[in-house]
Amino acid sequence: MSELKNNALAMHKKNRGKIEVISKVEINTIDDLSLAYSPGVAAPCLEIVKDPTTVYEYTAKGNLVAVVTDGTAVLGLGNIGSEAALPVMEGKAVLFKKMANIDAVPICLDTTNVDEIVRIVKGISPTFGGINLEDIAAPRCFEIEERLRKECSIPVFHDDQHGTAIVVGAGLSNALKVINKDKSTVRIVINGAGAAGVAILKILKQIGYEHIIICDSTGIIYEGRENGMNSVKHDLAKVTNSEGRKGSLSEALIGADIFIGVSVANILDEEMIQSMNHDPIIFALANPNPEVSYENAMRWGVRIFATGRSDYPNQVNNMLAFPGIFRGALDVHASEINEEMKLAAVFAIASLIDGNDLAQGTIIPDALDERVTPIVAKAVSEAAIKTSVAKKPVAIENK
Amino acid sequence: MSELKNNALAMHKKNRGKIEVISKVEINTIDDLSLAYSPGVAAPCLEIVKDPTTVYEYTAKGNLVAVVTDGTAVLGLGNIGSEAALPVMEGKAVLFKKMANIDAVPICLDTTNVDEIVRIVKGISPTFGGINLEDIAAPRCFEIEERLRKECSIPVFHDDQHGTAIVVGAGLSNALKVINKDKSTVRIVINGAGAAGVAILKILKQIGYEHIIICDSTGIIYEGRENGMNSVKHDLAKVTNSEGRKGSLSEALIGADIFIGVSVANILDEEMIQSMNHDPIIFALANPNPEVSYENAMRWGVRIFATGRSDYPNQVNNMLAFPGIFRGALDVHASEINEEMKLAAVFAIASLIDGNDLAQGTIIPDALDERVTPIVAKAVSEAAIKTSVAKKPVAIENK
Repeated sequence: MSELKNNALAMHKKNRGKIEVISKVEINTIDDLSLAYSPGVAAPCLEIVKDPTTVYEYTAKGNLVAVVTDGTAVLGLGNIGSEAALPVMEGKAVLFKKMANIDAVPICLDTTNVDEIVRIVKGISPTFGGINLEDIAAPRCFEIEERLRKECSIPVFHDDQHGTAIVVGAGLSNALKVINKDKSTVRIVINGAGAAGVAILKILKQIGYEHIIICDSTGIIYEGRENGMNSVKHDLAKVTNSEGRKGSLSEALIGADIFIGVSVANILDEEMIQSMNHDPIIFALANPNPEVSYENAMRWGVRIFATGRSDYPNQVNNMLAFPGIFRGALDVHASEINEEMKLAAVFAIASLIDGNDLAQGTIIPDALDERVTPIVAKAVSEAAIKTSVAKKPVAIENK
Repeated sequence: MSELKNNALAMHKKNRGKIEVISKVEINTIDDLSLAYSPGVAAPCLEIVKDPTTVYEYTAKGNLVAVVTDGTAVLGLGNIGSEAALPVMEGKAVLFKKMANIDAVPICLDTTNVDEIVRIVKGISPTFGGINLEDIAAPRCFEIEERLRKECSIPVFHDDQHGTAIVVGAGLSNALKVINKDKSTVRIVINGAGAAGVAILKILKQIGYEHIIICDSTGIIYEGRENGMNSVKHDLAKVTNSEGRKGSLSEALIGADIFIGVSVANILDEEMIQSMNHDPIIFALANPNPEVSYENAMRWGVRIFATGRSDYPNQVNNMLAFPGIFRGALDVHASEINEEMKLAAVFAIASLIDGNDLAQGTIIPDALDERVTPIVAKAVSEAAIKTSVAKKPVAIENK
């Protein structure tokens, strides 16, 4: 880790950050200037006045995404403030470009107040084709995303929620094929009721999983629980845990088929895993150290194991989702990223593992697999068109 | 103009705008990913938490400028709205990159309310090394700039005010050398009390010009005038027109040495120009058509003539000022762009016309003259250090 740390510091320092804004046009002569700037630039301005939709033709807006954070839930580092989050936001911008040829700009906010965040982000939205919310702590992130989705005419997507959820959905769908269990009967325990946990719950319910319990640090969330609740958890209690189970995570896991952790390192022990149903599936997504190590999971009889790490099989990496989702949404000028578009992404990602390749250690495509973003983008564009949120009914071509 | 228009539309359409955000680092392997993104990226984040000033070392912030508009005073087009202003803001970003290797991002706002603009721009300021306000109408632009300068810890600069004023100051200084008049005795008439007019007045007074009258569409501004006044104009009246002259622009011009127009096309006629003192100097900066044409000005005895146009001698082009000013401010992490830094830019620009080259048609360097930005940047950095607004006492090197 120390070598990685030193290399990372040296790399960031050498380049003074990771992103650069360049010109797509050459400016060498007065004639070049008069096309790109005054007086020629008045022509596209006036076209946009006449027909506001042409802003997508004459400007970079349609390919420009703001990566917005308030710095309250950065990686595994927590609330480090928005300036300190800038390296992560630039990293995200680099991934947007690399994976989907999207131009992304970090926007680090000076406030953690919900009303202010909503006002500021909406305030700059005319510039952008989409808004990627990043590393904003729960439960504020839910309200911020919901309000911005209502107020903005461009897609707003909180990646920590939906990016993770989509990849988990894809992986789980393939995992069940490997062990031959059915989504309507498996029992799922999600540990963590933050941004990712809530989004995973929502998407799994939409996919058709019926038996889900969600736990937080206090234990199982159930209707009537009094400790450590908030309005989001009250809502969760209503749509999960239909048997009304109570108690700790250990009690939740008894007989469960699937554990999905978006919580903290090393909270699963041998006894807990062995209390699960046969062929247990574990998604141990705590960062940087999972809820149970790969080695222990294998030793204790876990059948299928996924983490957020690149040094073990089945990495749950948001890179599989967000680049293709935004590419697909931008390509058809989608006004939002709706549930159908997210589900389309789930099944597109899952489809990349061919039936013959499906195996214990191969349920999720590789994070750098170049087939992923195009196939996700296509599925998302089609879903946008089908659900009538695409302002452009045929996807534009992207180099 | 129609060919220019068509070419400009085609160029903007071909590239879908003019800017692109690229990565300065290669991402080809999982190792690359783990340096630029998780888990390696945590290292620079934590360094910034420990020492917030290192954000300038590990991120792009120190070279990143927001080009912010509300779309209310775009080129000569007026209040066209902020999305329609996007081609201009992208053009500005292209110029920042071309002239000064600065990474600039357009930010088009959804509001024209002063309080909201101040809150939004301050809200996103942690991301940026500087704020360039652009094409915001007077008198709101004055309050917006003033409040943002107070509230932000990074330089805030309204280019329509100060960029133009700095180049006018440089040109005028050289013009007086050509015709051998003295700044303390010449009489100046500024026509236009908007963003540029007010800033020109301020900088000329700082340079040492003593006799200045400012006119608006109602005529000479004087203390006690009742029509068409606002709080800015009341302040102007106090610091100009010490003789208390009243009347129209024609009356103001009688005996004047210098006319500076930031107003509308073709308002100067032969009689008005011939009423001026010998060897009149005319800066006719109305866009795209000047207050008097070059041909008429020459015919009617104007000695030195400057416009905003590139097809006549002595083009007053902000490109001579803003790239070097921001380069200089960013290079020493200046907390603001103060009056001394602006004056340093004036004299740096003027200095590029050697005494032997000074002539009627050669008072201002060419807009694409590559010597300009470095010399302005150096002068501005030095002025920032001298006035103790530089957080970094030696300018960093820029490729």
